[in-house]
Amino acid sequence: MKKIINEPSNFVEESIEGLVKSHPDIYAFAPDNKRVITRAKKSSNKVGIVSGGGSGHLPVFTGYVGKGLLDACAVGSVFASPSVEQIASAIKNADNGNGVLCVLGNYGGDVMNFEMACEIVGSKGIKTKTVIVADDIASASNEEKSKRRGIAGMIFVFKTAGAIAETGASLDDIFKLASDANNNIRTLGVALSPCILPEAGKPTFEINDDEIEIGMGIHGEPGIKREKLKKADPLIDDLCKRILDDFKLNDKDQVCIMINSLGATPLEELYIISKRVHENFSKLKIEITKTYVGRYATSMEMAGMSLTILKINDSLKKYLFAKSECPFWNN
Amino acid sequence: MKKIINEPSNFVEESIEGLVKSHPDIYAFAPDNKRVITRAKKSSNKVGIVSGGGSGHLPVFTGYVGKGLLDACAVGSVFASPSVEQIASAIKNADNGNGVLCVLGNYGGDVMNFEMACEIVGSKGIKTKTVIVADDIASASNEEKSKRRGIAGMIFVFKTAGAIAETGASLDDIFKLASDANNNIRTLGVALSPCILPEAGKPTFEINDDEIEIGMGIHGEPGIKREKLKKADPLIDDLCKRILDDFKLNDKDQVCIMINSLGATPLEELYIISKRVHENFSKLKIEITKTYVGRYATSMEMAGMSLTILKINDSLKKYLFAKSECPFWNN
Repeated sequence: MKKIINEPSNFVEESIEGLVKSHPDIYAFAPDNKRVITRAKKSSNKVGIVSGGGSGHLPVFTGYVGKGLLDACAVGSVFASPSVEQIASAIKNADNGNGVLCVLGNYGGDVMNFEMACEIVGSKGIKTKTVIVADDIASASNEEKSKRRGIAGMIFVFKTAGAIAETGASLDDIFKLASDANNNIRTLGVALSPCILPEAGKPTFEINDDEIEIGMGIHGEPGIKREKLKKADPLIDDLCKRILDDFKLNDKDQVCIMINSLGATPLEELYIISKRVHENFSKLKIEITKTYVGRYATSMEMAGMSLTILKINDSLKKYLFAKSECPFWNN
Repeated sequence: MKKIINEPSNFVEESIEGLVKSHPDIYAFAPDNKRVITRAKKSSNKVGIVSGGGSGHLPVFTGYVGKGLLDACAVGSVFASPSVEQIASAIKNADNGNGVLCVLGNYGGDVMNFEMACEIVGSKGIKTKTVIVADDIASASNEEKSKRRGIAGMIFVFKTAGAIAETGASLDDIFKLASDANNNIRTLGVALSPCILPEAGKPTFEINDDEIEIGMGIHGEPGIKREKLKKADPLIDDLCKRILDDFKLNDKDQVCIMINSLGATPLEELYIISKRVHENFSKLKIEITKTYVGRYATSMEMAGMSLTILKINDSLKKYLFAKSECPFWNN
């Protein structure tokens, strides 16, 4: 296991301490919980936006705390849900008396712990609503869309919800916009190699040197299909086709796309992929309004990528393009 | 070789075509050369800033084209210098009649080709000056500083030179500031694993599973020392000590630091590293004014990192923190 770390058991604590030390104008530890990151400067008189989930996916989740994005985030251990107590602390720290929107990925432990945390803070008078992001088309059929896992698409929900919250919108209006974003996102990924969990010291899954897995989850959950590594163009054509079979778009639609590296896959490859996605969409006369390319939701050093499509309307566009302050979101 | 690519021989062309398609508001192809990237909107009435070098290091070099940064960049093949013709085209496209500053890394082929290109454009009346970035302390002693290779520190030179150029400063004044930045930068890296060259299909170097190499170059050039992988804290203490032995700082000095992943090394590890760098500098009472953490200068999917220290003064700080427009520089 070749990692630049100290004791594997301190991996999460040290990395978030480094995050706060590196960007003290953006992030702070919650006063009551060392596994909760808040904005360095607490907002006032607005609805709070909270997320949380397992570690090992930076910038997801806690990297997206910042003005115009999240107010607070509960940080779980590697690939494990944060505790109910941590989530409740994040919600309390994000609340200004106007309620809190929770945005999380659709994973059993996260969903259960957020539910319990919302009950606890609810009994203390904090109103919450929850959007469970379910964008990974590989993880369930369109008919069972709510069972899908949440992956890179959740960042579009963070961004739009975070931006509308800054305008002083109500919890109901923010919930409505975030739900609209969530319904208009589809993601599909491909894994080339596993990552290594610091404490376990071994790969999350095994895959042959000449194989890839379409639709594998960011924790190594099984995908749709394991196949021989092929050239970028046919691979990307396949991903585009699968997404567009699921998500019917027509030639009046505008989309934003995200080409996300799962970690090790370099920018050069992401841009080769992006070129082909643009060619595919251009043929279909679907306008790509903006392209995000980089590492937005990772599995540490895993090789592979995901393609996310967000169908936009005027409202989503306005909030997606609004200014924010965060090291991982370039306006 | 597990890469998401098409024909290895098209690797560079396809990746820069993807770059331009993905960010058409930022980048464009030069009208006369498909290996030269310019700003989408040409600046006017200012000194041009040009760079160039081998591919495989994105965002270096061409990712840093954008308002407040570079005007044009010549794109070589993977790990190979751009041609004299390509560099001359970049300079011509960046020129507005006020001259052009060339900023490049200290590699034999690049230095020679830039020199010849400057002669050619000079004969056509374009005035140029050149700053050769030499920040890698592993590659030559302090006495022979000008022989050092240029690595991640060059981004600080792009940024400060690019920002002062936007103010309408003269070529001489820009050269002076860029030289000042160059003199105040030190970088040291460590390599954990090689990358694979697309056309060769094999690793750039070999290293055992339990070994690291201090000071290895971004093309696999030999470093100072190969040793057993150790924990992050003693490794980072060693890097800090070597840099501070070379670059005497005192407790009135302010620095900006960059913790750069060579590719595969994830953000979690970079923040564990950053935590330790902050602790070391805090003990020495050297103020870290800003910390940049991410992938700024890479070797595709190579694992490892580099630490760059820029000693700042009021002038460097002003231009480093000035606004710019580039997907790879978050203001």
